[in-house]
Amino acid sequence: MDKSVLYQHGTLAQLVPGLFQGTLRADELLKHGDTGIGTLNGLNGELIIAAGKIYQVAASGVVRLVNADEMMPFANVHWADFTSVGAVDQLDYDTLRAELLHRAGTRNLFFAVRVHGTFQTVTTRAVAEQTEPYPTLTATAAAQQVFTRQNVAGTLSGYYSPNLYAGAVSPGFHLHFLDDAHQFGGHVLDAQTTAATVELQKFTDFQLHLPAADPDFLQVNLDDPNITAAIKQAEN
Amino acid sequence: MDKSVLYQHGTLAQLVPGLFQGTLRADELLKHGDTGIGTLNGLNGELIIAAGKIYQVAASGVVRLVNADEMMPFANVHWADFTSVGAVDQLDYDTLRAELLHRAGTRNLFFAVRVHGTFQTVTTRAVAEQTEPYPTLTATAAAQQVFTRQNVAGTLSGYYSPNLYAGAVSPGFHLHFLDDAHQFGGHVLDAQTTAATVELQKFTDFQLHLPAADPDFLQVNLDDPNITAAIKQAEN
Repeated sequence: MDKSVLYQHGTLAQLVPGLFQGTLRADELLKHGDTGIGTLNGLNGELIIAAGKIYQVAASGVVRLVNADEMMPFANVHWADFTSVGAVDQLDYDTLRAELLHRAGTRNLFFAVRVHGTFQTVTTRAVAEQTEPYPTLTATAAAQQVFTRQNVAGTLSGYYSPNLYAGAVSPGFHLHFLDDAHQFGGHVLDAQTTAATVELQKFTDFQLHLPAADPDFLQVNLDDPNITAAIKQAEN
Repeated sequence: MDKSVLYQHGTLAQLVPGLFQGTLRADELLKHGDTGIGTLNGLNGELIIAAGKIYQVAASGVVRLVNADEMMPFANVHWADFTSVGAVDQLDYDTLRAELLHRAGTRNLFFAVRVHGTFQTVTTRAVAEQTEPYPTLTATAAAQQVFTRQNVAGTLSGYYSPNLYAGAVSPGFHLHFLDDAHQFGGHVLDAQTTAATVELQKFTDFQLHLPAADPDFLQVNLDDPNITAAIKQAEN
């Protein structure tokens, strides 16, 4: 339980050409952390991992617990050891993210974010399960559902990754939301806080675990110079 | 002793603007592997780590053992568990590297390389120790010494990193040389094999350990779009 490590299964670039096949079991992922975000086989929905439980927000909007044997192509986890960095109030999403970076004090480390409280508005998306032959990441945007809730209590959680590692990661903030009732969530597109507490956890280490047993991964071309632009378009 | 992990202290991009200050002790590095490459505080020479010992090739050409308390800004190590992939004979450096990639069977994993045998010619360089205020990585090329030896028995060792991770790493091959007598070596600029055996070790995991306690690292701008070009120029 090394609390200084952010663990990642899969490299974000593999999703761009459509390598959505699950390559790690949920219970294997949980050996590397109790908190995080991710997606299921076929890019099926948005995952929020909290207190050792994995929640899926499906494109239907339904939230459910993920089983131990479900497979993931991509996920990030770490062992929660957050530090409180105060409160925020009445911030739009851009201002909130700027404030998180300001409180972190650096753009050069990976760090986890947990913002808990009341949100005036949260807009999320959830991707629908894709089937083989998989489309590109950009094309899946057409298959996503978008949800908006007002006056919702919950947690915005995920990671900041320095721009330098774009390709391995989605650069900047990658945040998911889960409401306190576990009935609403997804990949955050927009949020407006009312009153919320902010916690951060900085990492010294980033551990990239690649799907080395997947023949498709070993042969795919990840040298596309447009890969970072495609990631930014799909994940932000 | 996880043999599936390539451990890296520091991110290559930090060297481009001149963050050459040592931030990890030699004995701390050896907790993460017994085999590898690196450099000392001030970009002082080229390191070859073999069987748990760290050798420095200084700009004078002298090879010596590094002490436990010496500091490093950048190094890669892993626990040796190589697999033989046969022999090579009479290959120039470009052909040798193409052959290593061919035998690895993928461009998408990190892997270690160990080529032992006789080399018709080996050309290396070693960087001289820089002092504060440090110059840029590109400017240090003027302070490097170049050495050439004929008919030398030794080991060419280091790593292949996928292009996708350029910035964190020097993309492609990053290889150092140490002769069997421990009297000649450095960062390999060119090599012509006579007869040599080839071993590879593929990694599922790449663990990036950042100098999170270094105030200069936390504040430096690593978003320079020319950073990858500068790395390629300096390291190849």
